[in-house]
Amino acid sequence: MAYPQTSFVNTHIHPECLIGRRREVVMAHTLRYQLDVLKQTGRYDAFKLKWHPVYDEEPLVWPIPNHLFWDSDVGKWIEGACYFLRQHPMPDIDAAVQELVEMIEKAQQPDGYLNIHYTVVAPGKRFTNVKDMHEMYNAGHLIEAALAHEGVYKNGKLLNVMLKYVDLIDKTFGPGEGQLHGYPGHPEIELSLMRLYDHTHDPKHLALARYFLTERGNPTGMEGMHYYEWEAKKRGDDPAFKPAFYPDTRAHWYHQAHEPIVSQPTIEGHSVRATYLFAAYTDMLRVASKDDITPKHGAAMYRLWHNMVDRKMYVTGGIGAVRQWEGFGAEYFLPQSLDDGGCYSETCAAIGVMMWASQMLKLQQEANQLDGKIADVMELCLYNSVLTSMSANGKEFTYHNQLASSHNDVDKRCAWFTVACCPPNIMRLLGQIGGYVWGSENHNTSSPSIAVHLFVSSTHETLIGNEKTTISQTTQWPWEDTVQFSIEGSKNFDLKIRIPGWATQHVLQPECREAVLQSGYLTIPAAWLASNPKFSLKIPMKPRWVAPPLQTGQDVVALARGSVIYCVEDFDNEWVEDHFKTTFIDTIAPVEVHNTTKSSTGETWPALVLKDGCRVLSKQLEDGSPFTNYSTVRDQLRGAKAIPALKFVPYSLRSNRGGKGHMRVCLRKQPREAAHTQLQNGHAS
Amino acid sequence: MAYPQTSFVNTHIHPECLIGRRREVVMAHTLRYQLDVLKQTGRYDAFKLKWHPVYDEEPLVWPIPNHLFWDSDVGKWIEGACYFLRQHPMPDIDAAVQELVEMIEKAQQPDGYLNIHYTVVAPGKRFTNVKDMHEMYNAGHLIEAALAHEGVYKNGKLLNVMLKYVDLIDKTFGPGEGQLHGYPGHPEIELSLMRLYDHTHDPKHLALARYFLTERGNPTGMEGMHYYEWEAKKRGDDPAFKPAFYPDTRAHWYHQAHEPIVSQPTIEGHSVRATYLFAAYTDMLRVASKDDITPKHGAAMYRLWHNMVDRKMYVTGGIGAVRQWEGFGAEYFLPQSLDDGGCYSETCAAIGVMMWASQMLKLQQEANQLDGKIADVMELCLYNSVLTSMSANGKEFTYHNQLASSHNDVDKRCAWFTVACCPPNIMRLLGQIGGYVWGSENHNTSSPSIAVHLFVSSTHETLIGNEKTTISQTTQWPWEDTVQFSIEGSKNFDLKIRIPGWATQHVLQPECREAVLQSGYLTIPAAWLASNPKFSLKIPMKPRWVAPPLQTGQDVVALARGSVIYCVEDFDNEWVEDHFKTTFIDTIAPVEVHNTTKSSTGETWPALVLKDGCRVLSKQLEDGSPFTNYSTVRDQLRGAKAIPALKFVPYSLRSNRGGKGHMRVCLRKQPREAAHTQLQNGHAS
Repeated sequence: MAYPQTSFVNTHIHPECLIGRRREVVMAHTLRYQLDVLKQTGRYDAFKLKWHPVYDEEPLVWPIPNHLFWDSDVGKWIEGACYFLRQHPMPDIDAAVQELVEMIEKAQQPDGYLNIHYTVVAPGKRFTNVKDMHEMYNAGHLIEAALAHEGVYKNGKLLNVMLKYVDLIDKTFGPGEGQLHGYPGHPEIELSLMRLYDHTHDPKHLALARYFLTERGNPTGMEGMHYYEWEAKKRGDDPAFKPAFYPDTRAHWYHQAHEPIVSQPTIEGHSVRATYLFAAYTDMLRVASKDDITPKHGAAMYRLWHNMVDRKMYVTGGIGAVRQWEGFGAEYFLPQSLDDGGCYSETCAAIGVMMWASQMLKLQQEANQLDGKIADVMELCLYNSVLTSMSANGKEFTYHNQLASSHNDVDKRCAWFTVACCPPNIMRLLGQIGGYVWGSENHNTSSPSIAVHLFVSSTHETLIGNEKTTISQTTQWPWEDTVQFSIEGSKNFDLKIRIPGWATQHVLQPECREAVLQSGYLTIPAAWLASNPKFSLKIPMKPRWVAPPLQTGQDVVALARGSVIYCVEDFDNEWVEDHFKTTFIDTIAPVEVHNTTKSSTGETWPALVLKDGCRVLSKQLEDGSPFTNYSTVRDQLRGAKAIPALKFVPYSLRSNRGGKGHMRVCLRKQPREAAHTQLQNGHAS
Repeated sequence: MAYPQTSFVNTHIHPECLIGRRREVVMAHTLRYQLDVLKQTGRYDAFKLKWHPVYDEEPLVWPIPNHLFWDSDVGKWIEGACYFLRQHPMPDIDAAVQELVEMIEKAQQPDGYLNIHYTVVAPGKRFTNVKDMHEMYNAGHLIEAALAHEGVYKNGKLLNVMLKYVDLIDKTFGPGEGQLHGYPGHPEIELSLMRLYDHTHDPKHLALARYFLTERGNPTGMEGMHYYEWEAKKRGDDPAFKPAFYPDTRAHWYHQAHEPIVSQPTIEGHSVRATYLFAAYTDMLRVASKDDITPKHGAAMYRLWHNMVDRKMYVTGGIGAVRQWEGFGAEYFLPQSLDDGGCYSETCAAIGVMMWASQMLKLQQEANQLDGKIADVMELCLYNSVLTSMSANGKEFTYHNQLASSHNDVDKRCAWFTVACCPPNIMRLLGQIGGYVWGSENHNTSSPSIAVHLFVSSTHETLIGNEKTTISQTTQWPWEDTVQFSIEGSKNFDLKIRIPGWATQHVLQPECREAVLQSGYLTIPAAWLASNPKFSLKIPMKPRWVAPPLQTGQDVVALARGSVIYCVEDFDNEWVEDHFKTTFIDTIAPVEVHNTTKSSTGETWPALVLKDGCRVLSKQLEDGSPFTNYSTVRDQLRGAKAIPALKFVPYSLRSNRGGKGHMRVCLRKQPREAAHTQLQNGHAS
């Protein structure tokens, strides 16, 4: 059970914690809201293969038809719905899933082919543009839907459809004579084939995933040409043609297809594609025959992971600095907003980071070499760049998660999107989230262990050898700092609890002298657990300032507490007029913690307040000029107005309470010269 | 004589000043070097209309053939050569001009058409893509060449060719039935038609310029469609097709064609196109019948000018923050380098700013309302973003003028470019520069005046009424702060000398109590001049820190002295390893002025040295992380190494002495917390 999508069934998330409450919202509202949207937009019926008016629309983003992803929208909703159905019966949801599956089954062509666009709109052109047209991306999501469906219904209904389609894809693509030596522009089928193999144990499913993963980036794969250039030539494309999002006609790095994955030096291109691809690749390294895997394959994953985390990740866990290609920019290019030159930080990319992290952790757990830094990133994403993507009421979503608003891109969520990958993605993630919390593998070895990767109030059941164990953690994490553990049944395992990298202290109660902290995991030996089946762990959370690396050139800081990154919003700070661009803070001033309850969310969170440590330019700044003397800037700063209390809200809860849409995560520090004057004037600073 | 291109003949630039020495280099090296390049690359012979191997090459930037601008490359060389020939006989240059003109004359088609690409490579397709294919841009440069040629040869040889071509264009484009209601994607012909009208006084030349300028941006100009969409449809283009530099398929703001110029709220798009266009538009407002011009037309020019200067201009005078479209980004988006997300600052755009500024000044001078801020910008461009584009030896050039280098874009000049607009542009500007220095108009009015817009050692002759006056300024500006004036002949005019905005003081010797400083011009009355035909003006130059506006979010400063912006280079500061990204300075530390002579340039310039006011991170910084605490960053800063002397060089002289190509204009200020520690440690700060 190597996948969160399957292992989540062993975990019961308690409803009375942040994640639990979000799941309750999904079951109360989001599932049905998204189902309604599927129906209203035409997606629900699309597998009936009738013409829909949308098919005549001009693409929002040339040359991608607006309905191109409808297969996956339906697939992801089925997948997420099935995760929730697995643990919570909901007859209306169940009926919709069954009706959708009926329609999908009937939409399959006699030879196994299954795709709305290429069956209804562009028949006869299937597999002629795997670079841009998302056929296999859609297939991948339907495979994931089929696996989730199988978990609930166990009737093979959707799975058999997808097995037949996979057979066709397997016949079409591969290294053989007469086969297309191609691979999908948007990875997704790779990770779904890995999971399919885990279910079927059919080696051809593993082999096809491997083929897609290792053929990718071959400069001479098809008749001596790069596959994407070969197929463009075969289509007779104008060589000058490129899609809007393609940086230049041969920028195959957009698809991570510029060279074979194993030798890619840095993480590049579209960030969702990258994380989905590398999640599958990491999984493949774990599963594939050891003879095939050399150290350089693993090294590639660590190299790309660290390149992403160390040089291309926002303090929120978000990735993707460049909007044009929804992806990575230069190293240390991390603008906060459109006005700073970018910031995309797509919801799906943050979920992709979690998917990749969970595969990295599984690889490490099998080798008994867990590294807490990987799970730290997973948690950072979850509590910040992922959770921020859904409104308190579960009916509004974000696509990109900028770190600051601007006049042309205010801070808000939307009811839906033409390309609607993000809303069902957060929904299906919350459905399977239990699979991310606990790491529970190798229980038949001589030294079984259970890992706690995330602190989420939940109960986990597993077998240690042949004996059942039930282990629970109870906590109001990430708001509160204490986790109560309790074990029933077998205690014949080591417990490896991640201690977050930001923690300065951790206190076990009762004390455990045998606990060893190594690489971010605190190992509590089985012997101690046997005599201490109930214990608590406290990891004190003090507000702290985090900062983007010096190499970004940004002299800014963000406020964090525990795993939560905070932002400022106009709702709490009504005076703001410029998206907090000219709000300056003093990192030495005290930060107070105030518990706040907001009725609309039901959430009690610790609001943070910076006391007497904020100055803001009190009126609209005068126009700039290339001739401005620094002394003028300094005088402007000296004239800044003191704000006695700057109020912060968790980034994940932003934009839930109305307001004008002004928001910022990283704030500028008061320059030294301005501060000097304040000292001279005897003001607090 | 409203144009620098014609009025320059009244000014003799003294060879013993910075501009004079640059002109000497052009005459000794650049003219012949560029002529050699024209010959080696095929441009020189291209008007023979034979096939050239380059025509088979794949475009560097789809869909623009690499040879598309060859007509203009030849035209600009002829134009620049003729400006120099006007004042300095050079038999070999003269022979080349005459041979080129012979070839151009023979290349003209019977109906007047004249274009290399559409005659040789794509016959039958003329005027089918005026948005992208630069036919009229090329024509405009050939008109300018013809006018310059006429100034030297007065034989109508090239001019008659261009008049015939203009007749064809005039027949083809216009508001009439059966005419194309189009206008060129790259403006240039508009300003050349205005100058042609000044020469011919043929109202159809003015009318055609006006048509292009006022039809531009009409959303329904051609059969109810925007002209660019109409012609794309007519060509049968794939609606998904867009050139690489076009942000999206309908981003007509790239060409300043998104709405009529008069109502454009902000300056947008490709910066060279914008400045060429608005130079012509400003000129048109001055020349056109007053009945046609309403205040809103003038207001548009001031609005767009101020939007550019106040919110979209670098401290060097450079414009164009975004590389993809070589143009303007969001307001206050002014990244210094590729690593910061952009910075283009094209040479031609800075020259375009000067062209536009000179038209704004002429408009103001006719209304007797000179505003020194306009000329301040003109001077800022000249001494910084323009002069920096040519190497000391006159044989290497820049295309873009970033404010900081980076690993993927080191600081260097190039021998040539495939698209070679910039090298001949700086050459032709230096040929006519005398026309920018003095403003000499309205001499038949009751209150004649002569303006001094720029301080460049030179002698200017003009008629005041019927009496000749010869006025000279002698100075080592911009390096030295004193200008000696001397007048012979008529003194019956007011002298209006611009006092730069950065000046804190100006001293006339002998004293002139009657002088009045208004809007940046010091008016010295005729009566005083009559008794003081020789006098000096001193404008003390102290090094000063300038800063991008606070709204940019950059807490950086640049060092300036007088009109010169400085930068730091690795040549002077060998320790640099990271393009000065982690070099921090203290604006309170003293800046020393050291005169430096560099034999290879012959230039004696004041180098600036910041003493005990620089700290640099002494080794490669560790990798970043989204989890970095600010305290870690602060500790890194506290560990920075003191650099006793940080050496600065004028930005215009950068990259002339070898080195690794590390350079930066704007440097980060030491954060307050780091500085505090230094104070505590008793270090100078």
